[in-house]
Amino acid sequence: MGDIFVIKIGGNVIDDANALAAFLQDLSAVSGKKVLVHGGGKIATRMAEQLGIPQQIVEGRRITDAETLKIATMVYAGYVNKNIVAMLQANGCSAIGMSGADGNLVQSHKRVNASIDYGYVGDVDQINTQLIRQLFDMFDTIVVSSITHDNKGQLLNTNADTIAQEIAKALSKECNVDLVYCFEKKGVLLDINNEGSVVPKMDRFKFEKLKELGVIYEGMIPKLTNAFAAVDSGVRKVIIGNAAELKQIISGNAGTVIAHGE
Amino acid sequence: MGDIFVIKIGGNVIDDANALAAFLQDLSAVSGKKVLVHGGGKIATRMAEQLGIPQQIVEGRRITDAETLKIATMVYAGYVNKNIVAMLQANGCSAIGMSGADGNLVQSHKRVNASIDYGYVGDVDQINTQLIRQLFDMFDTIVVSSITHDNKGQLLNTNADTIAQEIAKALSKECNVDLVYCFEKKGVLLDINNEGSVVPKMDRFKFEKLKELGVIYEGMIPKLTNAFAAVDSGVRKVIIGNAAELKQIISGNAGTVIAHGE
Repeated sequence: MGDIFVIKIGGNVIDDANALAAFLQDLSAVSGKKVLVHGGGKIATRMAEQLGIPQQIVEGRRITDAETLKIATMVYAGYVNKNIVAMLQANGCSAIGMSGADGNLVQSHKRVNASIDYGYVGDVDQINTQLIRQLFDMFDTIVVSSITHDNKGQLLNTNADTIAQEIAKALSKECNVDLVYCFEKKGVLLDINNEGSVVPKMDRFKFEKLKELGVIYEGMIPKLTNAFAAVDSGVRKVIIGNAAELKQIISGNAGTVIAHGE
Repeated sequence: MGDIFVIKIGGNVIDDANALAAFLQDLSAVSGKKVLVHGGGKIATRMAEQLGIPQQIVEGRRITDAETLKIATMVYAGYVNKNIVAMLQANGCSAIGMSGADGNLVQSHKRVNASIDYGYVGDVDQINTQLIRQLFDMFDTIVVSSITHDNKGQLLNTNADTIAQEIAKALSKECNVDLVYCFEKKGVLLDINNEGSVVPKMDRFKFEKLKELGVIYEGMIPKLTNAFAAVDSGVRKVIIGNAAELKQIISGNAGTVIAHGE
């Protein structure tokens, strides 16, 4: 396989029809093979509200009970996934939509936690890289919703960031992989209120320094820690940026690149 | 490709978790390549009710407005499709779930009708048989939900019976195809109230005769007319029977076989 981009889009893109259409147009113009990973944005939450299904949050984490899993499966693997695929196809980008269950693409197990029962939440065990290779012979883009399965018949709601990272890590054993996280900011910012303060390059030394100085936004720290873990596992680089700047991100002119220090 | 079974399951199987599990176990045991086509049973209707979306029926036909399409996409391509795939994988049957949009599997156009606007309903234009061939190199079973697209970005709700028939007809140009319609009865019955009155074999002569005699149940006539059309287009045989008897149907010991007269 040639170089591969694994791209995860955040809920802010999925929730905005125009932003999503523009992003998919840009994605279709990126040459090479791409894996696009997505969840469902606020659509699932709104649907749960409309259906009167209470959402349980414990320690900031959503509990996925049976009804919530059903909604997540419908929204992520159905509505969002198939609309993305249809739009990519319309852009002339050959695309297939997958959940983790399809062809056992992403196998996981129900999270085991002594103190909290997260419900039907999956922790990833294994990525079927052979399947991805075969699909890339047929398609430019594989669109993966964040629903996995345990290979025993149970679907599981799974963190989309983690799926993207695990796919990138697994593929990086066979080829060059760049992992792109698209979120609402233009990258890692030195000043959270200033989109012009993007750090173009982040190495571990700079990260530790900025953490010490208390400059890095709290929510950014786990993202960056994960990004370094991905790079340590063989991913060529991780880029964090805004979906509206995909082209510039891909060409190295936007976002924050996380790579080994030189 | 070897012989292929194209099997359509009705809503009665999808609505009954035990019946579905038993059917999928039987399907997994059928050797050879299979396409399984499904809609969403009563789940979509119930969901529309719960969300307070009025279902418009004109001349016995459901109108698919934008909200109804959204629900159909969620239920058919998401919830039902992914649960079926997860169960097949758990049975050791390698399966992939597809909508018509994925890889442009089933391309359709929005129905044009001078007197009634059916909304987002698709009439099938084209089946991507090359894609099916490629997928059969990788999977035993392709699970197709009855959501198609127009290749211009619009998803379309499409009759599952028709999709099954069009797939069977298209594949029959390249190999032997048996088309199986699973519904709530054991086959074509001479007496609608007697499941023991299955007609094992139906040819066109017998069909015309039984129609004349007024023996054939009204709802059965379009099904049979379609079945003869499929056989005329090269499908080896069409079998109509009950999902609970899949094994016997496949081995020729249950259901009604529709074939050319000998």
